[in-house]
Amino acid sequence: MPLLRTLTCVLALVAALALPALAAPQAPLSEATQACLDCHNDATPGIVADWRRGRMSQKTPAQALQEPEAARRVSAKKVPADLMLVAVGCAECHTGDAKAHADSFDHGGYQVHPVVTPADCARCHPQEREQYSHNLMAHARGNLINNPIYMDLALQVNGVPKVEGGKAVLTPPSALAEAESCLYCHGTEIKVEGKLTRDTGDFGEMEFPKLSGWPNRGVGRKNPDGTLGSCSACHTRHQFAIEMARSPYTCSECHKGPDVPVYKVYQVSKHGNIYYAMHKQWDMAKVPWTPGKDFTAPTCAACHVSLLSDAGGNVIAQRTHQMTDRLWVRLLGLIYAHPQPKSPETWKITNANGRTLATTLTGQPAAKFLIDAHEQKARQERMAKVCGACHAQGWVQGQFARLDQTVKDSDAMVLAATRLMMEAWQKGLAQGPPKASPFDEYVEMLWTRQWLFYANSTRFASAMMGADMGVFDNGRWDMNKTVRHLEDWIKVHQKP
Amino acid sequence: MPLLRTLTCVLALVAALALPALAAPQAPLSEATQACLDCHNDATPGIVADWRRGRMSQKTPAQALQEPEAARRVSAKKVPADLMLVAVGCAECHTGDAKAHADSFDHGGYQVHPVVTPADCARCHPQEREQYSHNLMAHARGNLINNPIYMDLALQVNGVPKVEGGKAVLTPPSALAEAESCLYCHGTEIKVEGKLTRDTGDFGEMEFPKLSGWPNRGVGRKNPDGTLGSCSACHTRHQFAIEMARSPYTCSECHKGPDVPVYKVYQVSKHGNIYYAMHKQWDMAKVPWTPGKDFTAPTCAACHVSLLSDAGGNVIAQRTHQMTDRLWVRLLGLIYAHPQPKSPETWKITNANGRTLATTLTGQPAAKFLIDAHEQKARQERMAKVCGACHAQGWVQGQFARLDQTVKDSDAMVLAATRLMMEAWQKGLAQGPPKASPFDEYVEMLWTRQWLFYANSTRFASAMMGADMGVFDNGRWDMNKTVRHLEDWIKVHQKP
Amino acid sequence: MPLLRTLTCVLALVAALALPALAAPQAPLSEATQACLDCHNDATPGIVADWRRGRMSQKTPAQALQEPEAARRVSAKKVPADLMLVAVGCAECHTGDAKAHADSFDHGGYQVHPVVTPADCARCHPQEREQYSHNLMAHARGNLINNPIYMDLALQVNGVPKVEGGKAVLTPPSALAEAESCLYCHGTEIKVEGKLTRDTGDFGEMEFPKLSGWPNRGVGRKNPDGTLGSCSACHTRHQFAIEMARSPYTCSECHKGPDVPVYKVYQVSKHGNIYYAMHKQWDMAKVPWTPGKDFTAPTCAACHVSLLSDAGGNVIAQRTHQMTDRLWVRLLGLIYAHPQPKSPETWKITNANGRTLATTLTGQPAAKFLIDAHEQKARQERMAKVCGACHAQGWVQGQFARLDQTVKDSDAMVLAATRLMMEAWQKGLAQGPPKASPFDEYVEMLWTRQWLFYANSTRFASAMMGADMGVFDNGRWDMNKTVRHLEDWIKVHQKP
Repeated sequence: MPLLRTLTCVLALVAALALPALAAPQAPLSEATQACLDCHNDATPGIVADWRRGRMSQKTPAQALQEPEAARRVSAKKVPADLMLVAVGCAECHTGDAKAHADSFDHGGYQVHPVVTPADCARCHPQEREQYSHNLMAHARGNLINNPIYMDLALQVNGVPKVEGGKAVLTPPSALAEAESCLYCHGTEIKVEGKLTRDTGDFGEMEFPKLSGWPNRGVGRKNPDGTLGSCSACHTRHQFAIEMARSPYTCSECHKGPDVPVYKVYQVSKHGNIYYAMHKQWDMAKVPWTPGKDFTAPTCAACHVSLLSDAGGNVIAQRTHQMTDRLWVRLLGLIYAHPQPKSPETWKITNANGRTLATTLTGQPAAKFLIDAHEQKARQERMAKVCGACHAQGWVQGQFARLDQTVKDSDAMVLAATRLMMEAWQKGLAQGPPKASPFDEYVEMLWTRQWLFYANSTRFASAMMGADMGVFDNGRWDMNKTVRHLEDWIKVHQKP
Repeated sequence: MPLLRTLTCVLALVAALALPALAAPQAPLSEATQACLDCHNDATPGIVADWRRGRMSQKTPAQALQEPEAARRVSAKKVPADLMLVAVGCAECHTGDAKAHADSFDHGGYQVHPVVTPADCARCHPQEREQYSHNLMAHARGNLINNPIYMDLALQVNGVPKVEGGKAVLTPPSALAEAESCLYCHGTEIKVEGKLTRDTGDFGEMEFPKLSGWPNRGVGRKNPDGTLGSCSACHTRHQFAIEMARSPYTCSECHKGPDVPVYKVYQVSKHGNIYYAMHKQWDMAKVPWTPGKDFTAPTCAACHVSLLSDAGGNVIAQRTHQMTDRLWVRLLGLIYAHPQPKSPETWKITNANGRTLATTLTGQPAAKFLIDAHEQKARQERMAKVCGACHAQGWVQGQFARLDQTVKDSDAMVLAATRLMMEAWQKGLAQGPPKASPFDEYVEMLWTRQWLFYANSTRFASAMMGADMGVFDNGRWDMNKTVRHLEDWIKVHQKP
Repeated sequence: MPLLRTLTCVLALVAALALPALAAPQAPLSEATQACLDCHNDATPGIVADWRRGRMSQKTPAQALQEPEAARRVSAKKVPADLMLVAVGCAECHTGDAKAHADSFDHGGYQVHPVVTPADCARCHPQEREQYSHNLMAHARGNLINNPIYMDLALQVNGVPKVEGGKAVLTPPSALAEAESCLYCHGTEIKVEGKLTRDTGDFGEMEFPKLSGWPNRGVGRKNPDGTLGSCSACHTRHQFAIEMARSPYTCSECHKGPDVPVYKVYQVSKHGNIYYAMHKQWDMAKVPWTPGKDFTAPTCAACHVSLLSDAGGNVIAQRTHQMTDRLWVRLLGLIYAHPQPKSPETWKITNANGRTLATTLTGQPAAKFLIDAHEQKARQERMAKVCGACHAQGWVQGQFARLDQTVKDSDAMVLAATRLMMEAWQKGLAQGPPKASPFDEYVEMLWTRQWLFYANSTRFASAMMGADMGVFDNGRWDMNKTVRHLEDWIKVHQKP
């Protein structure tokens, strides 16, 4: 078949060269978006080209609404008329409802707001916005800022020590430091501080709003229109590819460090291994998403967010942007694991000692703020249904039984360290609550690692099969080491 | 050429849409497998769809046996007649030889065993099973469970401390905790503990065997039929793609933590860098596998397992599932590096002091249990031949000379730390063997890091060019730090 | 459209099978290269096949010179006549100018030098070689070897401790150990130590030069022809794919450890997330490279090296192999951050105390060796132009303001630790400079982590949005912990 082969070679070569031309055609543009592009094609060519690659530039809402319901990505029943027949372009997101957006400014004759918010996205995606508002993440900023205990820990992170007379004293952190540490993920507050003039080069001097807390894409960002969150934290601008939101890398941005090593666990899990080795064969963009057919191992999104159905169209799990929907126990222990909170505003929890924590220092849960056994069971069953797409019940129940045990064991290991910590406080070897910070001495930092790093790592490893993350890689061995370290520290320090 | 381009665009677009249709057609199914699929298409759609993607569903053993020998993946000369002409489906692996499988149970009229074992796989792959039985990994569970020294260390990992009267006392770990820590990789023992009834939803109540140690895919798993190992540890179910077994991610599942940071080293090695950057251009499924042509840098499998040949068909390395075939020195030091053991059952080794270790505490090897210089040389030459596919001899010998030196240096660094540890024991600052555990005090855990984390990391970095993994990232600097730390600890603790 | 679909399936299937045949044809070979291949096709089939995949084997310099200037990868105006019309093959790089190469030896009738150097590459790429000679990396070896302070630190890494009488004494490291630790990245010196004879198997006994320091691809390698550097550190042999040099994995080889965790930061940055999730849709080989169109997030190369232009051909950034061109502050603090050095030979810097460091121990910069504010501004503007391809000015300025603050904060945190360290020295609790090494005691190693690991991690996280790398993952929390640890250490050690 040399002739056919030659012909095919030629065709395939030409096809490869022609592939960029295959991108779906540009949807019609609004006059305003065309005006934006007239300058921004030159001013910021990268984001314009990025946007052209995405579905937002290629389909109008009217077209999107014509998809069968299961495949539809727009959750609005009705989209405002002026948006219906044009691409979702610059102006469709960055202008509109100007009064609500405190950062709106006159820019080439349009009222433009730089900070696109959930309210903007909700014009087409109201259901996702509504769900997300019940999600812990939407409140990630408030839950930190309003909780004096967490803010005390944050001070030990971002405060700048100055040594005088052999003693280190902390200077409170600047807003800039907070914005790029805790608030990078939790979200800054973006405020309009006035106006400023910039030389934009080819376009001359122009006036812009002066924003504090900018840039930021934190999940609990407080926006100039008062809304909470940033959809672009996961739905990365300006291509807004669903492939990206579904990729585990997106979650890794905030979930990889030693305090929340979820992505590190996923990386060494069987699920992760399958993803890395095989995902080039998958369809990461299909809606709804069919296990086995479109993908052969879950990413974070598959278990926690996405609409899953089988090949026959039967729904396995509904799409949710309230990601605690399928989670019954909060593994991120501060300082113990506990049932998920009823309200996403965790700073409103008070424990039996009147502190803003979901458990006491010895592990008693603040039960009235936490979901009950019935709700826990309902959520576990929802997750079990996801697992059940590929695993028999015996497999799933075996997995859950281990997680239950790990929660108990890790809590006991945190308690052991905490009892030693309390002993050090009682003996006056360290200064603890209520009069002093429990986070600002060396020995307290050893104790902090126990619940903030090691217990969390061990629990996540249990939940998602992360092997060594629950053993020698910030796992159980490290927890036993902390206990021995605290014993040793106390022994040395109580010598006369 | 606009016309041709347009034509090609259309063709390519249609081709892209049609691609799933290109999957090889389903091989004929046995009646039993068809019966499985009748329900499991709905019950566990993910694994069914996953299996359909793989070669097992697309070729009968008869077809597989027709491949030229070098390309053949089935090592049996003869496959049982009832398997020859059907796809390798559910029933072909999960039924058969029911009496040997203690987990067999009546399921829809068939005797089904959930736990597929090496004996099942060996019907078509007897050579791989035979080789693997000589591999250290097949004995990973026994080598841990039967070695009292290792089990003492495991207790310091999984035991749960309870603090009473200022002292932490360990409670022995539960079977659940062991199953998800050490035994997750080493392998659990799967036992039938009775029967239980489950509500399977659409299919009503059904009876299943109650399994302990389940789920597990550990490499040394003890199966209900008495066999050792789980082929699916690396040959991931149910697609069983050779691409996946050859991907480095598969090995990372158990070889990434600080005790065996092999994958971490690979990630920053030149080989790893080439893999990550270029492997989308490679053919990861070709058998035999040709360096340079099919792939341009080795994955774990290329050096340790795969059949390699040059473009002319000359064999560079034979396929082996006894992965120590190309390894002469055991770099994983417990507590020193040493020649590979003769038998894969390392728990049968006793050193000069009668302990179950391949060296004494000061480094004397248990020579009669270890391969001799002649066998070491033979294995090194086998590996050198793999290297030689791309590297000149001078390059390879230079690399090996460094590894030799690193083994010596790292052993000397472990010895230095051990001498300090022994001093602490002798002075009564810590309680060591033979009366007390060498692993359960803070200072002993500092010493443990020296040989379990840092020496291993340094040696693996040397073997595979892992740069900082042998320097500041759990490398030589950390080893010198341990020595200084132990000195400091002794100084403080021997104050009156 | 079943007919069309079927037709397309067939075509696409055939196309897939035919794809390898699409590789660009082999360019004509020189007689010498043909002679090399006659044996090396069998002797080292992997590298031959690897080379055949690359542009060097597929285009002659004459063809390369015909490309439009912006797309041209050859920077020579004129290439030597004997190279013009043949592929850049074995002989073109490994023979030629034999007298200059001390490692040249007679091999099959040709004067072959194993170690290809920048002088060889410069025949076609003189501009890159010239730029690179001004790059810090070209001097990476000298900057280490000639700086007694750095070599003292290197001794604490590679020296082998021996414990005698309860005290550890360091034995100086072997050349082999240095070659695979610090010098693996910084570069060895490759010297011809004589000749040796090897049995090459099928080709019989042959004589080769005996090289010390080999193998090595360090960026500051000292070559047998006296040149500095190894182009193949990043332009990996023998495919020399630009896709690889532009991939972040290449940089990770030397920039991932805790001392320079640049790649770790990139991995969790938004830029990194976009790269990992989306780069299979990108054109990693296009020259010039267009943000948004060819790629939607920068790799290391995009910001630091590559020629970038917009879709209209306007240059955004010129290609540079002096990578400090777009960098104003040196974030790698030894021990503080400081303006970039004027000369790439940093070992020639002396601070106010006469030490070979860019700052004093308390942070005073050696200003006359460092670039001034004007040059810093020029470099920052060059980088801002790269950012500006996708980001508005307000975004970029907000990002830079945070980095400025982080440099200040991290320097203050290093100063706090240093003041405590100096206190320990002054009190005689540890022995410091000028009489003793500042790196060889446990407490000094705690202090070393502050500036070598944590301050660097925090600054890189700030520069490239690495979230937790600036918080709990060797970040600010770890810096505050070091300060508390040093306080605690002093308290314990000054007890009588």
